[in-house]
Amino acid sequence: MTADYRIQKEPFYQPQSNEVALYQAAYQAKLPVMVKGPTGCGKSRFIEYMAFKLGKPLITVACNEDMTASDLVGRYLLEANGTRWLDGPLTTAARIGAICYLDEIVEARQDTTVVIHPLTDHRRQLPLDKKGELLQAHPDFQLVISYNPGYQSLMKDLKQSTKQRFVGFDFDYPAPELEASILSTETGIGLADAVRLVKVATAARALKGHGLDEGISTRLLVYAATLIKAEVDPLDACRMALVCPITDDSDIRATLDHAIEAVFGH
Amino acid sequence: MTADYRIQKEPFYQPQSNEVALYQAAYQAKLPVMVKGPTGCGKSRFIEYMAFKLGKPLITVACNEDMTASDLVGRYLLEANGTRWLDGPLTTAARIGAICYLDEIVEARQDTTVVIHPLTDHRRQLPLDKKGELLQAHPDFQLVISYNPGYQSLMKDLKQSTKQRFVGFDFDYPAPELEASILSTETGIGLADAVRLVKVATAARALKGHGLDEGISTRLLVYAATLIKAEVDPLDACRMALVCPITDDSDIRATLDHAIEAVFGH
Amino acid sequence: MTADYRIQKEPFYQPQSNEVALYQAAYQAKLPVMVKGPTGCGKSRFIEYMAFKLGKPLITVACNEDMTASDLVGRYLLEANGTRWLDGPLTTAARIGAICYLDEIVEARQDTTVVIHPLTDHRRQLPLDKKGELLQAHPDFQLVISYNPGYQSLMKDLKQSTKQRFVGFDFDYPAPELEASILSTETGIGLADAVRLVKVATAARALKGHGLDEGISTRLLVYAATLIKAEVDPLDACRMALVCPITDDSDIRATLDHAIEAVFGH
Amino acid sequence: MTADYRIQKEPFYQPQSNEVALYQAAYQAKLPVMVKGPTGCGKSRFIEYMAFKLGKPLITVACNEDMTASDLVGRYLLEANGTRWLDGPLTTAARIGAICYLDEIVEARQDTTVVIHPLTDHRRQLPLDKKGELLQAHPDFQLVISYNPGYQSLMKDLKQSTKQRFVGFDFDYPAPELEASILSTETGIGLADAVRLVKVATAARALKGHGLDEGISTRLLVYAATLIKAEVDPLDACRMALVCPITDDSDIRATLDHAIEAVFGH
Amino acid sequence: MTADYRIQKEPFYQPQSNEVALYQAAYQAKLPVMVKGPTGCGKSRFIEYMAFKLGKPLITVACNEDMTASDLVGRYLLEANGTRWLDGPLTTAARIGAICYLDEIVEARQDTTVVIHPLTDHRRQLPLDKKGELLQAHPDFQLVISYNPGYQSLMKDLKQSTKQRFVGFDFDYPAPELEASILSTETGIGLADAVRLVKVATAARALKGHGLDEGISTRLLVYAATLIKAEVDPLDACRMALVCPITDDSDIRATLDHAIEAVFGH
Amino acid sequence: MTADYRIQKEPFYQPQSNEVALYQAAYQAKLPVMVKGPTGCGKSRFIEYMAFKLGKPLITVACNEDMTASDLVGRYLLEANGTRWLDGPLTTAARIGAICYLDEIVEARQDTTVVIHPLTDHRRQLPLDKKGELLQAHPDFQLVISYNPGYQSLMKDLKQSTKQRFVGFDFDYPAPELEASILSTETGIGLADAVRLVKVATAARALKGHGLDEGISTRLLVYAATLIKAEVDPLDACRMALVCPITDDSDIRATLDHAIEAVFGH
Repeated sequence: MTADYRIQKEPFYQPQSNEVALYQAAYQAKLPVMVKGPTGCGKSRFIEYMAFKLGKPLITVACNEDMTASDLVGRYLLEANGTRWLDGPLTTAARIGAICYLDEIVEARQDTTVVIHPLTDHRRQLPLDKKGELLQAHPDFQLVISYNPGYQSLMKDLKQSTKQRFVGFDFDYPAPELEASILSTETGIGLADAVRLVKVATAARALKGHGLDEGISTRLLVYAATLIKAEVDPLDACRMALVCPITDDSDIRATLDHAIEAVFGH
Repeated sequence: MTADYRIQKEPFYQPQSNEVALYQAAYQAKLPVMVKGPTGCGKSRFIEYMAFKLGKPLITVACNEDMTASDLVGRYLLEANGTRWLDGPLTTAARIGAICYLDEIVEARQDTTVVIHPLTDHRRQLPLDKKGELLQAHPDFQLVISYNPGYQSLMKDLKQSTKQRFVGFDFDYPAPELEASILSTETGIGLADAVRLVKVATAARALKGHGLDEGISTRLLVYAATLIKAEVDPLDACRMALVCPITDDSDIRATLDHAIEAVFGH
Repeated sequence: MTADYRIQKEPFYQPQSNEVALYQAAYQAKLPVMVKGPTGCGKSRFIEYMAFKLGKPLITVACNEDMTASDLVGRYLLEANGTRWLDGPLTTAARIGAICYLDEIVEARQDTTVVIHPLTDHRRQLPLDKKGELLQAHPDFQLVISYNPGYQSLMKDLKQSTKQRFVGFDFDYPAPELEASILSTETGIGLADAVRLVKVATAARALKGHGLDEGISTRLLVYAATLIKAEVDPLDACRMALVCPITDDSDIRATLDHAIEAVFGH
Repeated sequence: MTADYRIQKEPFYQPQSNEVALYQAAYQAKLPVMVKGPTGCGKSRFIEYMAFKLGKPLITVACNEDMTASDLVGRYLLEANGTRWLDGPLTTAARIGAICYLDEIVEARQDTTVVIHPLTDHRRQLPLDKKGELLQAHPDFQLVISYNPGYQSLMKDLKQSTKQRFVGFDFDYPAPELEASILSTETGIGLADAVRLVKVATAARALKGHGLDEGISTRLLVYAATLIKAEVDPLDACRMALVCPITDDSDIRATLDHAIEAVFGH
Repeated sequence: MTADYRIQKEPFYQPQSNEVALYQAAYQAKLPVMVKGPTGCGKSRFIEYMAFKLGKPLITVACNEDMTASDLVGRYLLEANGTRWLDGPLTTAARIGAICYLDEIVEARQDTTVVIHPLTDHRRQLPLDKKGELLQAHPDFQLVISYNPGYQSLMKDLKQSTKQRFVGFDFDYPAPELEASILSTETGIGLADAVRLVKVATAARALKGHGLDEGISTRLLVYAATLIKAEVDPLDACRMALVCPITDDSDIRATLDHAIEAVFGH
Repeated sequence: MTADYRIQKEPFYQPQSNEVALYQAAYQAKLPVMVKGPTGCGKSRFIEYMAFKLGKPLITVACNEDMTASDLVGRYLLEANGTRWLDGPLTTAARIGAICYLDEIVEARQDTTVVIHPLTDHRRQLPLDKKGELLQAHPDFQLVISYNPGYQSLMKDLKQSTKQRFVGFDFDYPAPELEASILSTETGIGLADAVRLVKVATAARALKGHGLDEGISTRLLVYAATLIKAEVDPLDACRMALVCPITDDSDIRATLDHAIEAVFGH
């Protein structure tokens, strides 16, 4: 079962600083980790990379506001010949010694996050109240959560009693040269076009908080590069991947179109 | 089973620009697609047309806020001799390599939008937690969502972390001559009446934001044309199809009646 | 089963204009129909009459805000020897080719109404996701909804993407002479008393929006006529049927009592 | 089964006006009835009296907002050898020809109020969707609802489309001499004390809207009379039954105590 | 079964006035009783004492806002060989002739309280709709509810139609000498210390509405006395039992500490 | 079973004052205990320490708003050969005589807090309504709850009727020398670094209410010390453990970075 969750192929990841060494130190001490940063800047990729590098299984859970504690911990299924307990992903991770990655943890209802508390202090336990089992986490188990500071509102934020159970890593979009190199390596487009796409992104990211909720992610740049590589006109590619998905405001769209034409204009 | 979801007959679709080529490029790269535009302008028809043209099965899901993640992914059914797993439409699409079209995605609760995340990044996976299966999507699988920018409110909008997983296509009502040609071809009315109906629609669409929430859709024009073809008086047909369904405001109704009489008046 | 839903006896219906012919045209084209008008003005009676005249079965569903999509579409029932699928009324209607009449559609949760979308465009399909069936509607199937414009608030209204799937019929209280004739025919009271009752109703309907939420319906006039026919004093009959049920405001009650005494006073 | 719901003993009821004859006329025509009036003024007693007088069974349901349509209509029970359908009280009443009395109807959720619609128009039917039965009501069946105008708020009121299905009866506290006679007859206290209690009630009822939400009901007067008959000091009896339950406001309590002492003071 | 609910040992209760005789009169007439007063002033103890004195079983239910009508009345349990009905505490009490004590009734959802209505008028019935049984209450059955006037807000209050079904008893903290005697008798501390504790409580109770939501209860005084009896320093005992649990406001804490030191200071 | 819940190894705990003796007195009298204080200051550790010292089993429940009364009390499980009752953690604790520790009690819904009432007064009972059992608590049973005064809002606070069932213990961060000694003893870093970390914490705690919701907990200091012990640069360690998890405000971050550099700067 552990094998199912191992990363089979080394994920493509270009370090931005000393984050790999720091993560290794946190993992050795089994400190719970919080990775912070905007949408699509590479947080999930980093965790996959570290799981591969450490040779540990990784179980990822996309959190959402309808997720109940039972979705994480497990539940009894009603079957023809009685009930059967089914471990949830958090329980599985604690049992087999996986890294459990709770993506977008703030989406979960505040109080669903309480179930991770006993796993994140010296106890490293998960009480399965409904099953009558007190699970002691495997020594290799580690909990990782992601957190997008740009989204937090008064209504949705982690409680201090949850936050103060983690050490944190700040992520941001890669530096321009690094990001261009990522685009070129991942999609095969020429470096000149890659640099142009990053220029568009830089212009758009400056609009965050001035009409855009969030900057253009590296993921969308990869989409645009993929379309350009498939011989779509770069102007069309940019409009499809960098403008249309993120805004419907006509002023912002005009500004973005202007930037695209300035950079890619024939 | 795949055959069940294939479009048997070529849907009637008249391209407005180079959207067919752009969609083909997105499909070849299996980029997730978001189609944006007002009600009844032909978004769903376009996707059906592309599915037919690409020769791929199409599974359409009308999203709504009571739809749970299980409705998309699948569930266990209790039967006489044990339980049986039933794949949901998203799982079926990922298994057989269909285009999965989630219509009016913003209506769905967040848990249904979050389940599509692992299918829309490099992983292309769908975790079936309750079944203990990690489904790798078929190479032909593609996800498409529709989105009506005119509806989004603060309460109901896609999160940036969802939006930034798609390339987008903007749709609008067809240009007047094209729309008249569509009406004539679909219903068999004469081109003169078709042109008159489009004139009424153009007048009504100018009222969007000035008393009308939304312009008159191509669909309603087809209804009016159908009634005229069935020898209903054009004034009655227009009132039934173009006025009564979309507004109860007496001023707006008077304006619309005036436009209809100006165009169709004997 | 189809026979169960056929109207056995011709319903009493007096046409107000050319609505019967227009409905027949809409039915021949199987266009979805929306009937609009105030409470108790005869909308449901008209649909019953048309179903009888067309010789088609009629399935009526009284919508309410607790109605789920499953209540319309169907669900699995847990039985002693496993589960059994039970078609909901909408599914039954689509299967047997009935007219399905969703009464007071706006009461249903907005997103429950989304399930009717694929039945109301060129597809004429109903996906039974939970059953894994894609039901193609019977050629005789038609969808009809009712809608009371006086009730709609910001919170409860149909979405444009729903409205723009219907052709509409406007209904109102019958003209005075017609309404008096209906009262006399239905209850057997003399035409003089029937005319008096309509006079009271006309006075009360003028108060709509000036203290009354809704005018006095034809149904309540029939109640009053029934009591008068049973030799209840007309003043008592009017107070019981035309005043007490619709308002508790003492000023409005005084106005109504005054009108009743002016018309029926000894 | 019908016998179970028959009123065995004639309920004590003193008519206030010609309501008995009017109710008989409404029952003969099987018109649905709405009884309106303040708490504890005798509405339920009147319906019991009429059921006894008409010789019809009476089924009473105390409505509440957790009541589902199934609670009224019925449901399947899972049993050892299969499932068994259990009629709800409304279904039972429609089957056996009882008067069905829905007490405090506005408390119920809308789905419970909508199920009564087809029983309250010319159809007199109850669709048992889950059972696949369309029940035609017994000719003796009649529906009665109660309604307290003082309680209705914007949030909780019957819809006009429900209200306009009933003829109404207005109730109020009995006139002073009648109320004193009721107290004396029901509890056995002397008429002098009964008159004193009604005086206290009259004073308190004048405070409605001036510090009291509702006047003192006839029921509370009966409680006070019962305690006096049991040789409790009248001042104690009045404080226990007429003051303590209805208000905690010290000013209002002082006013009421003053009235009690003025009437009963030694 | 009745024996299970009998109070085995006479509860310690010191009457404050003629409440024992008044309660006996209400019980003889089986009038429903409402006991009002602040937290921890002895309401529940009084009811236990009366149940013991009258020799009747007592069934206590701690009400809460998640309590459903089924929690009070009963429900079907799904078992291996079908369903089994399980009486709720209210039904059990009505069957065996117990006093049923609904503690903190206002916590229950307003409409859950509607189920007690038919038990609190001349009918003394409990309709078990789901079971198809109309339970006639045992002659010894009586309903008692508790009510804390200090808590009631606009959102949470009993409806007048519920309030006006009860006779009421007002409770408050015992008079100082009586309260000191209670502390001494229950815990064994000397009367001097008991008097000191009551002095602290008197000071604190004066702060109700001026920074404290509620005065210090007799229960907390018993806790403090218990700690003093166990040789805890009186200052520590008072801080643990009389200050820390009831407020975190530093000004109020200073005021209370000051009062404690003034009374117990060495 | 009792053995499962015994603390096997003496937890590391350094008393701050006479809280150990006071807790012992409260335990001997079986008074319910409330421990108050900020996140991560050692509340849970104290209870574990006391359970070890008293030789009693400890059952800890992390409360959350989805927790139902059944989660605490127990439920029936459907199994192949019938149903089986499963005690919840509170029931288990009451049965075996454990200390039951409800962590973050205010997160729980009211129905879970109300079930503890009969266990926290002279009755010391837990009614298992669904099982038909009235459980008398084991003489060794004690209830402990935790409470963070900094979090309570108008929406989420314990009711006075719950609060007034406990004696309270106030906790705060340890005094500087004690805290440094704890860091050194737990992680093995030198005392000099430990003192430096406490200096950073002291600076940060002064920002509580001035930009920080909560001070830096002892737990986060232990994390930083752990990383320093693992040869992470102290500046990196402080940023990961003391800054990144608790704030995203750039001003506050600058202030904290400044303090860290002032204390640890090379």
